[in-house]
Amino acid sequence: MHSFQQLVTLFDEQLQTASIFPTTLPSLYEPCNYFLGIGGKRVRPISCLMANELFGDLTEDAWNAAFGVELFHNFTLMHDDIMDNAPLRRGKQTVHERNGLTAGILCGDVVCIKAYQQLSKIKNSLPQVLQLFNTTAIEVCEGQQLDMEFEQRDEVTVEEYLEMITLKTSVLLACSLKMGAILGGASEANAQKIYEFGINTGIAFQLKDDYLDAFGDPNKTGKQVGGDILANKKTFLALHASKQATNKQQHILAEHNESNPTSKIERTLEYFVKTASDKACKDAIAFYSTKAFECLEEVIVPASRKKPMQDLATFLLERDY
Amino acid sequence: MHSFQQLVTLFDEQLQTASIFPTTLPSLYEPCNYFLGIGGKRVRPISCLMANELFGDLTEDAWNAAFGVELFHNFTLMHDDIMDNAPLRRGKQTVHERNGLTAGILCGDVVCIKAYQQLSKIKNSLPQVLQLFNTTAIEVCEGQQLDMEFEQRDEVTVEEYLEMITLKTSVLLACSLKMGAILGGASEANAQKIYEFGINTGIAFQLKDDYLDAFGDPNKTGKQVGGDILANKKTFLALHASKQATNKQQHILAEHNESNPTSKIERTLEYFVKTASDKACKDAIAFYSTKAFECLEEVIVPASRKKPMQDLATFLLERDY
Repeated sequence: MHSFQQLVTLFDEQLQTASIFPTTLPSLYEPCNYFLGIGGKRVRPISCLMANELFGDLTEDAWNAAFGVELFHNFTLMHDDIMDNAPLRRGKQTVHERNGLTAGILCGDVVCIKAYQQLSKIKNSLPQVLQLFNTTAIEVCEGQQLDMEFEQRDEVTVEEYLEMITLKTSVLLACSLKMGAILGGASEANAQKIYEFGINTGIAFQLKDDYLDAFGDPNKTGKQVGGDILANKKTFLALHASKQATNKQQHILAEHNESNPTSKIERTLEYFVKTASDKACKDAIAFYSTKAFECLEEVIVPASRKKPMQDLATFLLERDY
Repeated sequence: MHSFQQLVTLFDEQLQTASIFPTTLPSLYEPCNYFLGIGGKRVRPISCLMANELFGDLTEDAWNAAFGVELFHNFTLMHDDIMDNAPLRRGKQTVHERNGLTAGILCGDVVCIKAYQQLSKIKNSLPQVLQLFNTTAIEVCEGQQLDMEFEQRDEVTVEEYLEMITLKTSVLLACSLKMGAILGGASEANAQKIYEFGINTGIAFQLKDDYLDAFGDPNKTGKQVGGDILANKKTFLALHASKQATNKQQHILAEHNESNPTSKIERTLEYFVKTASDKACKDAIAFYSTKAFECLEEVIVPASRKKPMQDLATFLLERDY
C-alpha cells in the first residue's frame, strides 16, 4: 500500500512515461502538456488508485482510469477558464490567455478525447466503468451550467448551491473512487459506499474552501482573505447570510458594496458572523465530514487497508490551509 | 436493405425516439436539440448503417454507433463555428451566436460526452470500436488545428491540404463506415476496404465542394459562385493555382484583390483556368472517386447487397450541386 504522497510521486512519474501527447503537431499538443504540467493536487487520480488499493495490489486498469480522470478534469478546467474569463490558474497563465481562444477550445477537446482513449484501454468491467464515467461527465457539465446560471440569478438557495457543487465537484471525485474500487474487484455494496464517501468528502471540501476564503489564516492558506467576497461570489456563506439577514442588514451591506476592498471585506465578514453563517458553514462541513467518515467505516475491508484513505480524508477535510 | 433516403427517414425517427437529451436543465439541452435539429445530410450515420447492412440485418449496436458519430460530428461543428466566428450554419444561427460563447462551448462538450455515452452502449466489439473511434476523434481535432494554422500561413502545399481534409473530413466518414462493418461482423479485410472507400470518398467529396464553389452552376447548387474566393480560402484550386502561376499572373491577381467582388471572382476564375487548376481539381476528383469505387468493388459480399452503397457513392461523388 502507498501513502498519498507516494502515489502523487508515482502518478507524476507514470504520467511522464505514458507520453499521453505525441511530439507531432506541437501547436496542438504543447499547450496540453503545459497545462497538465501545471499540476494541482491530483486528488482525483490518487483517490482512484487508493480505492483500488483498498482491495489489493494496484491494477493496470486502475492506472488507465486514473489517467483518464485526470485528463478529463484538466479538460473541464481548460474550458471553465474560458467561461470564467480567467487569465490565471494556480498562478500560471490559462491556455486561452497564453495561446488564444481557438487553442483553449481545441486543446480542451483533444484532452477530453485523450481521457476517453485512456479509459477505453481498461480490460475488465469496461462497460460498467464507462457507464459510470459518462453519467458523471454529463453531471459535471450540468454543474458548470448551473454555476454559470447562478452568477446571473438574483436568488439562489443554499440547497441549490449544494446541488451545484455536488455536480460540479463531488461526483467526479466519487466516480474516481468508485472506478478504482470496481477495478479492484469491490462488491457492489462496497463500491457504492466508496462513492458516497466521495460525494460527502467533495461537498465538505468545497464548503471548507468557502470557509477558508473568508475566515482562513492568510499565514496558513497563503492567500489574501476575501477573494470570493470581492468577486461577489455566491458561496455558502453569502447565500446563507442573505437568507438570514434582516432587510436592514442587507441594506447596510449594500451601502458598503461600493466602498474600498478592505472595508468591503471587513463589513461582509461582520455580516457573515452576525447572521451566524460562519457557524452554519462549520456545522455543514462537520455534517458532511462525519457522513464521509461513516461511509468509509462501512466499507468492508480489513481496517489496516483503510489507513491511507483515512489519511487522505483527514487531509482533505481537516486542513486549515 | 434500405435506400439512403429510407435510412435518413428512419434515422431521424429513431433520433427523436431516443430522446438523447433530458427535458431538465433546458438552458443546457435546448441549444443541443436545436442544433441537432438543423439537420444536415446525416451522411456519417447513414454510412454507418449502410455498411452494417452490407453484411446482414441492421443491428442495435449499429444504431448506437450511428447516433454516436452524428453527435460527435455535431459537437465538432459547434466548436468549429466558434473558432471560425461563423454566425450561421445551414442558414440558421450557430449556437454561440444564438446562446452565447459559454453555451457554444458547454453544449458542444455535453454533446461530445453524449456521443461517447451512445457508443458505450455497444455490446459487441466495444474495445475495438472505441479504439477506432478515439483515434479518429483525435485526427479530427488535428485536422481542425491544421485548418486553423493554414489560414495564418503564407504557403501551404496541395499535399498538406489533402492531408488536412483527410483528417478533418474523411477519417470520420471512413470510421463511420468501418464501425458499421465491424458491428455487422465484417472480416478485417472487408472492414479495411470499407474504411479506404470512406477515405477516398471523403477526399473526392471535399474536392468537389471546392470545385463547385468556383465552377458550379448556381441554378443547381443554389449558391452564389465564389464564396471561397471572396473569403480568400486556401482551397485545392487556390493552392494549385498559386503553385502553377507565374510571378506575373500572381501579381496581376493581387492587383485585383482589392477590386469589387464580382470582378475579383471573375479574375480569379480566369486565373484558375489559365493555371489549369480547374482541370487538376477535376482530375483529382476523378482519381479519388475511382479509388473509392475500386475499394467498394473489392469488398467481398454478394453484389446485390452493394447497391445502396454504390448509390450513395454516386450521389456523393457525381453530384453537380
